[in-house]
Amino acid sequence: MFDVIGFDADDTLWHNESIFNMTQEKFREILSHISPEVVDKTLSSNHIKNLKVFGYGIKGFIFSMVETSIELTNGEINGNEILKIIDSGKDMLAEPIVLLPHVKGVIDMLSKKYSLLLITKGDLFDQESKVVRSGLAEYFTAVEIVSDKNCETYKKILYRHNIAASRFLMIGNSMRSDIVPIVNIGSHAVHIPYHTTWDHEKKHPYIDPKKFKKLNHIGLLPGLIEEMA
Amino acid sequence: MFDVIGFDADDTLWHNESIFNMTQEKFREILSHISPEVVDKTLSSNHIKNLKVFGYGIKGFIFSMVETSIELTNGEINGNEILKIIDSGKDMLAEPIVLLPHVKGVIDMLSKKYSLLLITKGDLFDQESKVVRSGLAEYFTAVEIVSDKNCETYKKILYRHNIAASRFLMIGNSMRSDIVPIVNIGSHAVHIPYHTTWDHEKKHPYIDPKKFKKLNHIGLLPGLIEEMA
Repeated sequence: MFDVIGFDADDTLWHNESIFNMTQEKFREILSHISPEVVDKTLSSNHIKNLKVFGYGIKGFIFSMVETSIELTNGEINGNEILKIIDSGKDMLAEPIVLLPHVKGVIDMLSKKYSLLLITKGDLFDQESKVVRSGLAEYFTAVEIVSDKNCETYKKILYRHNIAASRFLMIGNSMRSDIVPIVNIGSHAVHIPYHTTWDHEKKHPYIDPKKFKKLNHIGLLPGLIEEMA
Repeated sequence: MFDVIGFDADDTLWHNESIFNMTQEKFREILSHISPEVVDKTLSSNHIKNLKVFGYGIKGFIFSMVETSIELTNGEINGNEILKIIDSGKDMLAEPIVLLPHVKGVIDMLSKKYSLLLITKGDLFDQESKVVRSGLAEYFTAVEIVSDKNCETYKKILYRHNIAASRFLMIGNSMRSDIVPIVNIGSHAVHIPYHTTWDHEKKHPYIDPKKFKKLNHIGLLPGLIEEMA
């Protein structure tokens, strides 16, 4: 049924969204004189707006926090406070990579039978560094870092690696990025939700739930693949 | 002598460093109560330090301006001034792509006889957008955006495209990124200096000047290639 398995990285192989949430908590503390609901809502709106300017990734998120802090204090926040925000963003970039349970064993096992691709979106520099720090790089035939995940990006990747869409399986936590486009190009997909999902990734066109599989955690993947194959 | 020609993008095909210089001029004006020499020196030092955190690209440069403004005002600069700095950085990302003289004709001509690669370093999202806006994308067999240009990166690219090092020619303005590693992996290189070079790119290990060619502008490239081939 498939020869190549693609894996999303953030929140599929290792924790990521939780790092954003942790930083956002620190950010609320820096702006503690403003209601947390207002802080969250303004930050979310600035972050989404900035995707068009900066693309996905931590750097755009840091700029969004800085802009939000300026907006919500009518420009009165001072440099030292802003430096705290930038530093909390730099901390995100240096956070240790914590693999999700079962990941190492599952990847090791599947790499013996299938060719594995890592397909992740975001900042090139940051994502490359995370792949190296994850200790998983050696298991993947190739690592593809893209600025966005849509039908076009996936088609290009499959073309470059000479993979027929029908022989490709993608695993990921985001319906919008890992499942919907994959189903739409005629590949197979397994959705493994992370315990928390960025609102932006939750929005996606409807697809027939029979067209993809869903698992509670990645430890169940080898069993499912055996059934599917 | 070669089948494939690689081109650097920033300051080889289109203006880039001049946009940084323009923004740096605005930045000096925002900090006009501080001597421009001190501003430049502090910014340069922060920018170089931040390469390890943020990688190459405009986003890291914007953070470096913001940090410099905080450092040089002992944290007293306010949010509105910092927003001006961020906005001047956003302007950089939206600057129109201005091709250098002769580029369009030379690329068009060479693309008829050689396979052309675009090899550029920096932010994935920004570099992709520039390639599209340049109107040159169609002339290139592939666009490779990398986080750094060194022997390893070039070897990987040549391997991926199945090109022998001895059959590859690289064209670029930076000795450090486009010429030295290329000569060291046994490929051919043509150095075409831009009228201004970022100090960071000027630092490079010595190589024998006989091992690469040098041109005053890209309009002279087809003639040189004819001589070399």
